[in-house]
Amino acid sequence: MHLKQHTDYALRILMYVARKRETQVSSREISDFYSISYSHTVKTVNKLGKLGYLELKRGRYGGGITLAMEPTRIEIGTVVRQFETNLDIVECFDETNNQCTLTGGCRLKSFFHEALNAFFDSLDGKTLADIVPSQKPAAKTI
Amino acid sequence: MHLKQHTDYALRILMYVARKRETQVSSREISDFYSISYSHTVKTVNKLGKLGYLELKRGRYGGGITLAMEPTRIEIGTVVRQFETNLDIVECFDETNNQCTLTGGCRLKSFFHEALNAFFDSLDGKTLADIVPSQKPAAKTI
Repeated sequence: MHLKQHTDYALRILMYVARKRETQVSSREISDFYSISYSHTVKTVNKLGKLGYLELKRGRYGGGITLAMEPTRIEIGTVVRQFETNLDIVECFDETNNQCTLTGGCRLKSFFHEALNAFFDSLDGKTLADIVPSQKPAAKTI
Repeated sequence: MHLKQHTDYALRILMYVARKRETQVSSREISDFYSISYSHTVKTVNKLGKLGYLELKRGRYGGGITLAMEPTRIEIGTVVRQFETNLDIVECFDETNNQCTLTGGCRLKSFFHEALNAFFDSLDGKTLADIVPSQKPAAKTI
């Protein structure tokens, strides 16, 4: 059971930017720091920008990425939901493609929905401020 | 967020066999019923046999698959754990391949461990008997 790669990247990018506080960072810097491909980094950064979590200033001089809101307002459960757009945890959850004749009386779906709700309930209330270490990232790429 | 394909298959195969009660079924029948490839079906059936959930009798005549224990003793959470052997829900959980310099102070891992525990806690106590509809499978492949 895994989160999508982009969900993982989104959380780690938010952590990186949060730790740099007001300092602007670049997609290249994040990509180098985590050894994530540059194109995946840019795609995830852009989505985080559209979702209002990051402020993206363009321009070779003075451009860069910063957090667009306080880490205490960025909820982990919400970010995971926004990136995990498909929560059909088993194949037969997809009703458009479900030919299983057991469906009528099957309770598997409701049990997994309950389990997923428990998963997200556990994440809800936890914010970026809770997961970000207080010290700045190591000097590796700075 | 998805379960592995084989976890999904394992649960559905157990459901199918449970609904047929004492009647022996074949891997071909299960494969046809769910439109799962025959080789995936055989692989999953064999693993369920090794785990003690299914009794597999070989032979063209008199051979077949039945449940090896009561559906009330087959716990959904346990089956999911046995098939989801890799529960590194985010990449950085893999300590053998983790070069993230944030790791020291990062609480992401512990939050996801808590969330996964909540997921399994929700499934624990639910058994195959709880998810299997009382009527037999539709006549599609019988």
